[in-house]
Amino acid sequence: MVDTRFYGQSTPHTVRQLADMCGALLEEISEENRVLFGISTLKNATPADLSFLSNTKYLDDLRKTHAGAVFVVSQYAKEVPSNTLPLIVSDVLPAYGVAAALLYPSVHKPAEIHPTAQIDPSASIGDNVSIGAYSTVEARAGIGAETVIGAHTAIHAGVIIGKRGQIADHVTLSQAIIGDDVRIHAGARIGEPGFGIVPSSRGMVFIPQLGRVLIGDRVSIGANTTIDRGSIDDTVVGNGTIVDNLVQIAHNVHIGKNCTLVAQVGLAGSCSLGNQVVLAGKVGVAGHVHVGNNVTAAAKTGITHDITDNQTIAGFPAEKVNVWRRQVVTLRKLSERPPDKGERNA
Amino acid sequence: MVDTRFYGQSTPHTVRQLADMCGALLEEISEENRVLFGISTLKNATPADLSFLSNTKYLDDLRKTHAGAVFVVSQYAKEVPSNTLPLIVSDVLPAYGVAAALLYPSVHKPAEIHPTAQIDPSASIGDNVSIGAYSTVEARAGIGAETVIGAHTAIHAGVIIGKRGQIADHVTLSQAIIGDDVRIHAGARIGEPGFGIVPSSRGMVFIPQLGRVLIGDRVSIGANTTIDRGSIDDTVVGNGTIVDNLVQIAHNVHIGKNCTLVAQVGLAGSCSLGNQVVLAGKVGVAGHVHVGNNVTAAAKTGITHDITDNQTIAGFPAEKVNVWRRQVVTLRKLSERPPDKGERNA
Amino acid sequence: MVDTRFYGQSTPHTVRQLADMCGALLEEISEENRVLFGISTLKNATPADLSFLSNTKYLDDLRKTHAGAVFVVSQYAKEVPSNTLPLIVSDVLPAYGVAAALLYPSVHKPAEIHPTAQIDPSASIGDNVSIGAYSTVEARAGIGAETVIGAHTAIHAGVIIGKRGQIADHVTLSQAIIGDDVRIHAGARIGEPGFGIVPSSRGMVFIPQLGRVLIGDRVSIGANTTIDRGSIDDTVVGNGTIVDNLVQIAHNVHIGKNCTLVAQVGLAGSCSLGNQVVLAGKVGVAGHVHVGNNVTAAAKTGITHDITDNQTIAGFPAEKVNVWRRQVVTLRKLSERPPDKGERNA
Repeated sequence: MVDTRFYGQSTPHTVRQLADMCGALLEEISEENRVLFGISTLKNATPADLSFLSNTKYLDDLRKTHAGAVFVVSQYAKEVPSNTLPLIVSDVLPAYGVAAALLYPSVHKPAEIHPTAQIDPSASIGDNVSIGAYSTVEARAGIGAETVIGAHTAIHAGVIIGKRGQIADHVTLSQAIIGDDVRIHAGARIGEPGFGIVPSSRGMVFIPQLGRVLIGDRVSIGANTTIDRGSIDDTVVGNGTIVDNLVQIAHNVHIGKNCTLVAQVGLAGSCSLGNQVVLAGKVGVAGHVHVGNNVTAAAKTGITHDITDNQTIAGFPAEKVNVWRRQVVTLRKLSERPPDKGERNA
Repeated sequence: MVDTRFYGQSTPHTVRQLADMCGALLEEISEENRVLFGISTLKNATPADLSFLSNTKYLDDLRKTHAGAVFVVSQYAKEVPSNTLPLIVSDVLPAYGVAAALLYPSVHKPAEIHPTAQIDPSASIGDNVSIGAYSTVEARAGIGAETVIGAHTAIHAGVIIGKRGQIADHVTLSQAIIGDDVRIHAGARIGEPGFGIVPSSRGMVFIPQLGRVLIGDRVSIGANTTIDRGSIDDTVVGNGTIVDNLVQIAHNVHIGKNCTLVAQVGLAGSCSLGNQVVLAGKVGVAGHVHVGNNVTAAAKTGITHDITDNQTIAGFPAEKVNVWRRQVVTLRKLSERPPDKGERNA
Repeated sequence: MVDTRFYGQSTPHTVRQLADMCGALLEEISEENRVLFGISTLKNATPADLSFLSNTKYLDDLRKTHAGAVFVVSQYAKEVPSNTLPLIVSDVLPAYGVAAALLYPSVHKPAEIHPTAQIDPSASIGDNVSIGAYSTVEARAGIGAETVIGAHTAIHAGVIIGKRGQIADHVTLSQAIIGDDVRIHAGARIGEPGFGIVPSSRGMVFIPQLGRVLIGDRVSIGANTTIDRGSIDDTVVGNGTIVDNLVQIAHNVHIGKNCTLVAQVGLAGSCSLGNQVVLAGKVGVAGHVHVGNNVTAAAKTGITHDITDNQTIAGFPAEKVNVWRRQVVTLRKLSERPPDKGERNA
């Protein structure tokens, strides 16, 4: 199912190799030399493919799959058809991720700086850096070794990018210091001046935006996401944090480590997130609010006040998730009958 | 009211020509040779202009209009002032659309590939293709006849675009196969890798994103919209589907035919929409959820569970629209008096 | 705390100079020659820094600050530590904004048109205009004196930009007439055709989009924001209006003067806003709806009907803010006990 037009030929592996590399238990040793050539969904897999069950919604697909082998947790191993080898793991998706990278290793093109790239002589370019067509690198910018920059990307004066970065096409970077192993997808805008205009008796006053954006190591930033630079303090994205597409991160926001921000989240100015915070799609956080460690917010949650550590929240204004569920059920029940029924009965 | 600076001179037509071409009934035959030179709103129209009533909110403007002729449904023909000719149609907007295209035919510039466009020699470029300044077309990409590509657009290796496409400026296309007559507006990001990172006991694991984006015929994609490529299966947008600006379509999403997605809609990974689905502004659909054929969701609806065919839904979590309306009214009534009033009465 | 890498060296001022320029009251005249070299937050300031208290959430930081001087309102002057000079103002942020611009004056680079910029010979370029690398300016476009255009920006045929504009990188401008002193941040799409496709008995009909975008003076447009051009009438943004990132403004929308639209707001086609309207983050306004002067909408408000002047609103569907608050409290109380408790008690 993987299109060779885009991903080239696969690198076949035996089931044994895959089980060992992915930490999976293979019970049927007699079949350990079966060779798998590709990956596919349960539904579309052929005997030459590896597949996986990561969501019980697809349990019926598992029972009917023609895959050569599948990653499953032990609980569902008995549902695997007889011609398919179960590869038992405690966590399916990471195992699948490792296997997919083995079967389809990413192609390393030789580093190349395109002749149309405009690079200021004072910029510092590391070893084996690639820069795509028409990209611009201004004075005193620094790009770490093995970083790949796409086409049409603008890197402004003084910006620092770490090693092994993957910066896609059409990205704008200014006033930013970026760690190692960072991925920034197409059209992200990092370091634009935030919303610094305030009314006064003398008319609107521009507040100069004099801060930076600091992005840690192993951060991923989605397509068309916007991260404004700080006004004085910096806007900070901690190590290992993953930001999806079309997310707004305003000036002076501080995001901790290993957070997950799903698409269309919006963080207002000077709010802060602890570590391991998960904000599902379209969540909003108000200005100057603090969200504690290990907080998970359901989609569309509106967070207008500080949230202590280890909560799961939902709704607007945000409530603990079970309180919000009770509110949904309460309103549903109260609306089933005319609201004045109790009074009529009395 | 149409600015010649941007749209050039109009091509005048008689009322008879316009009525015939647009399927309208013109009763006052004595005036059929009246010439119309342009289009305008009811409020701003002169006797040289064609106008239309598409929303009864503007009925008062109809009664006072100076337009030479107006498209109306028969019900409102009697409201048309005496100096204005009614052109009676069953559906106003399509008739207006045809008339506007007759009065202001789009200018066909001669096809041109700008000398600064970077085109890989292995790319296949059809007849009469235009490519704007600084755009980049990588190896083995294919662009169908009469397609127009704007400036600063990046077309990655292997991408296929059909015939008569209109791809605007600053678009990023990768791992995508695109049908005929497709419009993609500025800044759209199609084929970026989705949110493929999962936690594991060995730290975060990247899931290689090995799928594609398949876009059908006659699809329209809005400005700054993001469509991630599939992780294994493809992300699919069916024939005739229209997607507005700033929409997020995550990996493995399947969208049927002739759907309408209004601005700022967000579709989470692996959800699916049937045919003729209409999602109004800011609607969100959760991962792995299926929305049936002919479903219409009001603005801001949050869809967290499967929806059967032919529903109109609203709210979060999504309810049938009349249930949601009853909930709104119930809560409004219950809040009019202090909530403990019943207890005080008891 | 301001990074010289991005902002250069500061221009030191005495406390007296800053007080006078910013309209602040300095009571301790003996210290009026104290020199300040930079700005910082209350928490990070050294005796060489100016700081400010704009939010009482940071009152404790004020009590512990080491700043050389701070802007405060008179009410909090007594909280300023003894080594810090209070600069008493009626409004803190505008004073801070003026001081920051004095300490870090923006660097005026000499005007330069980059040799790679593609400028049509019929375009009109004012005095001291700067145009960045690879930007494109088409036929008959006009750019006012002292305007600065970034890199990779596309200015289409006939577009007019006023004086002293700041147009960032990767911007797309078409069918637009733009006033003086306008700031447009990276990736904004202005003038794309709106959502002009309607169903008919003969299939989908494209409605030609023949209007313009008119942007007044002193407008600011955020990064990756999209403003569609009018279909017949124009899409209008009034003088002094400020639009944040990732905002959607559909065709024919009319926005008055001095409005504030926070990130991820969405305005549907043909809605209108009066003057001094404030829409907080993620607010949506339905098509053809009018929002009156001086209306303020809380975050996530969904406005589906006309709103009269001078209201503060919240919720979906929008209510007066105190009504919405009562609804939130009512539902919270009703959900605390099982909803059928009253019946069991009866």
